[in-house]
Amino acid sequence: MTLGEAVAAQAPLAQRLLDGLAALGADPPGITRDAYGRGENAAHALVAEAGEALGLVAATDAGANLSLRWPGSDPAAKPILIGSHLDSVVQGGNFDGAAGVVAGLAAVAALQAAGIHPRCGIEVLALRCEEAVWFGLGLIGSRCLLARLPPGALDLRHARTGLTLAESIAACGGDPRRIAAGTPLRDPATLGAYLEVHIEQAPQLVEAGAPVALCLANPGNVRHPFIRITGEDAHTGLPHRFRRDAALAGADLALELEKLWLAEEAAGRPMAVTIGRLHTPAERHSLTMVSGRFELSLDLRAYAADHLAALEARLAGIVAEVAARRGVRIDLGARSAAAPGRMDPAILEGFAAAAARAGLPAPRLNSPGSHDANNFAAAGVPTGMLLARNRNGSHNPDEAMETGDLMASVSVLTHWLAERAGE
Amino acid sequence: MTLGEAVAAQAPLAQRLLDGLAALGADPPGITRDAYGRGENAAHALVAEAGEALGLVAATDAGANLSLRWPGSDPAAKPILIGSHLDSVVQGGNFDGAAGVVAGLAAVAALQAAGIHPRCGIEVLALRCEEAVWFGLGLIGSRCLLARLPPGALDLRHARTGLTLAESIAACGGDPRRIAAGTPLRDPATLGAYLEVHIEQAPQLVEAGAPVALCLANPGNVRHPFIRITGEDAHTGLPHRFRRDAALAGADLALELEKLWLAEEAAGRPMAVTIGRLHTPAERHSLTMVSGRFELSLDLRAYAADHLAALEARLAGIVAEVAARRGVRIDLGARSAAAPGRMDPAILEGFAAAAARAGLPAPRLNSPGSHDANNFAAAGVPTGMLLARNRNGSHNPDEAMETGDLMASVSVLTHWLAERAGE
Repeated sequence: MTLGEAVAAQAPLAQRLLDGLAALGADPPGITRDAYGRGENAAHALVAEAGEALGLVAATDAGANLSLRWPGSDPAAKPILIGSHLDSVVQGGNFDGAAGVVAGLAAVAALQAAGIHPRCGIEVLALRCEEAVWFGLGLIGSRCLLARLPPGALDLRHARTGLTLAESIAACGGDPRRIAAGTPLRDPATLGAYLEVHIEQAPQLVEAGAPVALCLANPGNVRHPFIRITGEDAHTGLPHRFRRDAALAGADLALELEKLWLAEEAAGRPMAVTIGRLHTPAERHSLTMVSGRFELSLDLRAYAADHLAALEARLAGIVAEVAARRGVRIDLGARSAAAPGRMDPAILEGFAAAAARAGLPAPRLNSPGSHDANNFAAAGVPTGMLLARNRNGSHNPDEAMETGDLMASVSVLTHWLAERAGE
Repeated sequence: MTLGEAVAAQAPLAQRLLDGLAALGADPPGITRDAYGRGENAAHALVAEAGEALGLVAATDAGANLSLRWPGSDPAAKPILIGSHLDSVVQGGNFDGAAGVVAGLAAVAALQAAGIHPRCGIEVLALRCEEAVWFGLGLIGSRCLLARLPPGALDLRHARTGLTLAESIAACGGDPRRIAAGTPLRDPATLGAYLEVHIEQAPQLVEAGAPVALCLANPGNVRHPFIRITGEDAHTGLPHRFRRDAALAGADLALELEKLWLAEEAAGRPMAVTIGRLHTPAERHSLTMVSGRFELSLDLRAYAADHLAALEARLAGIVAEVAARRGVRIDLGARSAAAPGRMDPAILEGFAAAAARAGLPAPRLNSPGSHDANNFAAAGVPTGMLLARNRNGSHNPDEAMETGDLMASVSVLTHWLAERAGE
């Protein structure tokens, strides 16, 4: 059996697993697999059973992450991890996260069907609680594994159960004291690679007509959740030259940031600006008053740390310009930041070669969203990601990935593993 | 005694009345004279007593407006009305409205001190409930007098007492059945002129260094209180070309309307754009979502009916352009409109001549706000307004008109009355 035939033969397995995960998470009109709860636990059980059926060794780490390990022939070779998550948002779709775990199992099954036995170990990981909705903090499973939880995170409370993160981990068979110790559960230096397949959260692959993309980087961000603009309340009749209109200053700031975005993209520097909140304060709304107050949020994302730093300097300049020309004060307020996750160049080229062997055109794309891969990349583990074509974005019931498109990712993954890990 | 000396001698009267009105409306940190309530009623009583001390005849009309009449020597001559209002907003200032009634009494007192007796009658009017805060509808006293109440207005409920407008009018000695009949309480054809002094609600006279302005026109408006923009909710990672961001469309629309404003002003066509509400919906706020919904209000004002009509056509064009380039739907929603109040050209020139005789530079200005004068002008009564210098706008405790500046308006008014009404 050729490797291509071996991959194609796993489509029924992938479909069966995806269907099983959809059934256990059914929460019409969408899918809910609650982190550290019934939904995620049932998904872990289903995946563990499927892994064991392939002869993989199931284990749970101190963060309650599930590992399904296929030992390699060379105990000294660093293992390759293939991971993603099984939790979802509330009434989201079936594929954000789950598709990646299924892809890992399908790749293992394909290698086995092709009679390939790996030199290094291959592990399929189901990482806990990737979605930020449960604790107001995302990527928790990979943070636990790599000791990248922010201070106080173990005391955060679950939005649905009210249990702390520490209690939630313990309830799922983990060891929160080990996590609290702050040392990685796996030494990054001992890991050969971290690979992740994830649905694309934008329709770029639909637009490009390609089933799979090689991910260049995951975005990092700078966030200001509570920007405040202070001008002066005034009467409808106040001539323009006297106004210090905070609302128009907010509109001006928003469009200047959009201009920056478009200019950067035109110059080949990908980024994104999202202003989810943009508003006059509701308690002061009046048809006949100029608003002296305005608020907005800002999520600025880019794919390289130096680019993010340059954008932040531009932000400061734009804020000063708008404040000066509008006669208002602009307070950026609290700031948070996350580092971009650049994919490993050797893995990227390896994926490209694998795609060529598999006969698949595979464009290179930046990932629209952040993923567990960010934590592995930040910890120094050589990291690679594949994006699967998907309609209608993610975090909604209309996510639409076709299993055939997921199998394209499985094919690239399998060809790469065969080259890298095969004996 | 010259006319100028006669006017100057009334400053203590004006000050005493202003102080009395401030005392009875004291509601720290501002002034509250509630329409059809304790505050406005006490103010009417104080003004009636002052008018009677000048020998004027007090009467209350079916709209509970107070008239203080100085009969003229020629019963066939059409009377001249000098009016404004005594109600205020909640915790507003002392001068919005009250200054005009005080100016009328001071002008009568000045004419008397100068030994002038009018050929036509002169009436000082205290019109009820000019402020829109009490019933969500403004200019009610002059609407009652001229049968310009909109349908259903008598059933509106007072924000503080809960009484209907009809009940409120009755409680103050008016006759709501007469108002409901829908015929003017005074036939506009029998009125010689309506004059009003009002504080300027913008700092144009402060800027110009002049104590009084001759008003060219009061603005009319077109209002859309509930404009809705519908785009598409999306994930932070969605590239720009796929977004249909309702918030940025709202910002774009707001700034395009501001551009229109500035272009019109530059072309010598005064107007104003006020967007009091400009906001993403609070219940959907998220730092990491592109907002598919946005709302705003719009108050578009101008000083000529044909200009307002032209602006409304431009509004439709701008809305279509923004909707097209942003891929969103923009629904303007409910519309209301009020006609501009252009001042009578003969009165305007008469005021200019009176100001010259009084030795006062008097710039010509459009009024920032609408006033009871709008209803008289719309009813065909020759109407004139003077604006008194005032710092800090109106509808706030910091209104700051100096009595000396009000006396400049009294001087112009008195010189005009002496010319027009003197025997």
